[in-house]
Amino acid sequence: MSRVIKLAVIPGDGIGPEVVAEAEKVLDAVTRDSGVTFEKTRFSLGAARYLETGDTLTDDDLAAIASHDVILLGAVGGVPGDPRLKDANIERGLLLKLRFALDHYVNLRPSRLYPGAPGPLADPGEIDFVVVREGTEGPYVGNGGSIRTGTPHEVANETSVNTAYGIERVVRYAFAQAEKRRKKLTLVHKTNVLVHAGGMWKRIVDAVASEHPDVTVDYAHVDAATIYLVTNPGRFDVIVTDNLFGDILTDLAGAVTGGIGLAASGNINPDGVFPSMFEPVHGSAPDIAGTQQADPTAAIGSIALMLDHLGLADEARRVTRAIEADIAARDGSARTTAQTGDAIARALPAATPAA
Amino acid sequence: MSRVIKLAVIPGDGIGPEVVAEAEKVLDAVTRDSGVTFEKTRFSLGAARYLETGDTLTDDDLAAIASHDVILLGAVGGVPGDPRLKDANIERGLLLKLRFALDHYVNLRPSRLYPGAPGPLADPGEIDFVVVREGTEGPYVGNGGSIRTGTPHEVANETSVNTAYGIERVVRYAFAQAEKRRKKLTLVHKTNVLVHAGGMWKRIVDAVASEHPDVTVDYAHVDAATIYLVTNPGRFDVIVTDNLFGDILTDLAGAVTGGIGLAASGNINPDGVFPSMFEPVHGSAPDIAGTQQADPTAAIGSIALMLDHLGLADEARRVTRAIEADIAARDGSARTTAQTGDAIARALPAATPAA
Ligand SMILES: CC(C)[C@H](C(=O)O)[C@@H](O)C(=O)O
Ligand SMILES: CC(C)[C@H](C(=O)O)[C@@H](O)C(=O)O
Repeated sequence: MSRVIKLAVIPGDGIGPEVVAEAEKVLDAVTRDSGVTFEKTRFSLGAARYLETGDTLTDDDLAAIASHDVILLGAVGGVPGDPRLKDANIERGLLLKLRFALDHYVNLRPSRLYPGAPGPLADPGEIDFVVVREGTEGPYVGNGGSIRTGTPHEVANETSVNTAYGIERVVRYAFAQAEKRRKKLTLVHKTNVLVHAGGMWKRIVDAVASEHPDVTVDYAHVDAATIYLVTNPGRFDVIVTDNLFGDILTDLAGAVTGGIGLAASGNINPDGVFPSMFEPVHGSAPDIAGTQQADPTAAIGSIALMLDHLGLADEARRVTRAIEADIAARDGSARTTAQTGDAIARALPAATPAA
Repeated sequence: MSRVIKLAVIPGDGIGPEVVAEAEKVLDAVTRDSGVTFEKTRFSLGAARYLETGDTLTDDDLAAIASHDVILLGAVGGVPGDPRLKDANIERGLLLKLRFALDHYVNLRPSRLYPGAPGPLADPGEIDFVVVREGTEGPYVGNGGSIRTGTPHEVANETSVNTAYGIERVVRYAFAQAEKRRKKLTLVHKTNVLVHAGGMWKRIVDAVASEHPDVTVDYAHVDAATIYLVTNPGRFDVIVTDNLFGDILTDLAGAVTGGIGLAASGNINPDGVFPSMFEPVHGSAPDIAGTQQADPTAAIGSIALMLDHLGLADEARRVTRAIEADIAARDGSARTTAQTGDAIARALPAATPAA
């Protein structure tokens, strides 16, 4: 029996194409002889495309991407300060537009300190949690504006918009994750200052908690959560939080678990109405683009999340095992992006024979 | 010649009274025979007062506090989850009300890794920066609300309000700090998402930078800044940032420099129109209240900031030296709050003889 999966590939800018090449290498290797075929379409999007054509993401691009089953994205964003990009906002116009248009309301970001991975903490303990970051609301909605712009009388507002509908669905997803894990869920917000949005998050978490009596629920202000992440990260199992707090916490979490060169993520539409999109947490790092210095592990980890999302649990597990084995074997000597991709592909364990 | 300074003392809740007692002890010791007298008024405010009277901060309280030269605050906030505090918001109604009413537009939070202080980073390097957090704008303004509250159709908004007036003054203060320090200033924001507020911050920093050609200016997104704080905190000298990002970064900064038991802060009205307020960054920690387990160092460090603000540079320096000496001498054995206060008071160096 063979299954064909339509994959949209957006390599993007900077180190994006290099890490995506390795992610594809591992994807090809893990699905060889599996009966699953990925039918790929490549989309040239990002700062490079903008500079060439002036387009960030056209309606046609969006429709074409949306017709796929799943999306792999490298990284987007040009060289900071490039004057030709002054009026572009590739992040808003491309990355966030995809997340919002494709209703990626779950931004899933696992944080694990792999055995052998170097990290900045003296005594990290075991770190293994997942951040379920809301992806379609909060301060990211783009409901801001300014008056008297550029004058001494300028006023600039940014409105965080939050709905019970939007929060409940992501909170339910987070509880489902907790049920599959160590059954602990932490809401992170800033309820003492953002009383309206925070109050609603709190009420909804409390309500859904009553349906999950076996899940232990607690709460941390976002400022306190950053302290825990460096002093006691082992206390977390599932964190559920808003779009902006999730952005901040997951970069920090990436840093404490060996760097965002390892941090994978999924922008997920759990309902399957739109294709989900998998991408490393890191950016396009134009300063090292083309030098084969980038670590493709985060992109390859995103493949594991993608396979899991597609129900290909054995393939997902094999990619994760290969990453673990490779990280444990790293001795700190320099490798090219491709060498790391090769090493992880080589480390793939055999498929579990079908029962 | 003698100078009388009117000091409003707000011990507050939880460990607040304990750490304030030690701060006062050191203040008394350092000003003995100095010709400076602190005339103190005590204000009973916080959760305890709210439970007794239902008041958080009355207009009379505010007027009385405002008639002082300077304010020392311990910590406010009751036991989390106390049902009797369900409708109280001590943080908004007291702490933030003071900061806003007294126009504390500079929230000054130095971060230093004292020699000998234990910290969570394996290889922290030298850490010595100050965060200049805006204190009267941003997502803290309280311009939020909700409709259909508590129903499945609830919408809750929180509006961050930012003005050129408000940003320019805090940015100017931050540049003045950088001029006195290592001449490096980093703006932290999220300009790629919060384009209006972020764009204004960026424009104003660029404009003021042109008046400070000797200050090196750079920019980091808030998510990236949290990574730097754990991987390369030595890169920072002065950070200028908005109210919410500053809240998050300074808790994390406190953690990487030995814990918020050491982190001091000043809520400053540089124009001197209103009294400035000095407080430890930590909260009221009701779980250890009354047990003499709290570290009063952050409160004592806030005294150093207060003395500096009052132009008592020699006294400020002596308190800082005493803290440094005490931290260097700590051997990890348990001390009571009072013992630490005594030790720091004893470690005060002699006053510099007047020229
Ligand atoms: C590039 C930026 C818009 C994005 C975000 O803020 O979500 C990034 O930081 C991330 O975490 O994926
Ligand atoms: C208690 C709270 C309102 C306050 C803040 O968010 O500013 C605290 O976290 C701080 O940093 O002083």
